[in-house]
Amino acid sequence: MEHELKNFIKKCDLAIKQEDFDTLMNYYTEDAILVVKPGMIARGREDIKKAFIAIAKYFNNSLVPTQGEMIILEAGDTALVISQTLLDADKNNNEYSMDRKATYVFKKNSQGEWLCAIDNSYGTELIDK
Amino acid sequence: MEHELKNFIKKCDLAIKQEDFDTLMNYYTEDAILVVKPGMIARGREDIKKAFIAIAKYFNNSLVPTQGEMIILEAGDTALVISQTLLDADKNNNEYSMDRKATYVFKKNSQGEWLCAIDNSYGTELIDK
Repeated sequence: MEHELKNFIKKCDLAIKQEDFDTLMNYYTEDAILVVKPGMIARGREDIKKAFIAIAKYFNNSLVPTQGEMIILEAGDTALVISQTLLDADKNNNEYSMDRKATYVFKKNSQGEWLCAIDNSYGTELIDK
Repeated sequence: MEHELKNFIKKCDLAIKQEDFDTLMNYYTEDAILVVKPGMIARGREDIKKAFIAIAKYFNNSLVPTQGEMIILEAGDTALVISQTLLDADKNNNEYSMDRKATYVFKKNSQGEWLCAIDNSYGTELIDK
């Protein structure tokens, strides 16, 4: 059986592909952060939603994220997911790779549901930039 | 002023250098995990302490960890730290680099103290191994 976080991330990727950002925001904690690009961080659902709208537009509304190899490091109500994140779009981002080694942190809420707290698709490359 | 997590990690590194593993265990959550090496995980303070004792012995009781460039991604009571972790010892580990891009996840407890929940010095390299 696949880990519930693997399925959860699939739902996130589908929401991004479908540009259903209201649904997507339900998958983030209230005070979540998204690394938009190295040095630029969106804080909280409202800002993260705006960032996703801008990212979608940047990629000509054709962005499709999928995950390759994935390692889930779970410690109680907290999990670090290391994942090969593949971005496909009709426009390439020349500045940053479309094949990333991402780091995502998830927290389980009081209802036992995982939510994304830290969304950093750049992984450890942040310290190279 | 330095981020409190930067100072916290310095205290962890000092405890490792001094092989004061009882103090070190106070810096981990009860259900913390340590990636000992790719594919090998220690769970909980007791196992993590045993792993640190074995690691210290492996490095001839000469291991000194320090941190280089560090990025702290803080989201409420959760933080992901991306850090260049340098390991110095009188014996090198030939299998894994002594200059790593580590990923550490911290949680703030009800007293407002940060504790390490996920200790993965291998960073995103886990998906290459």
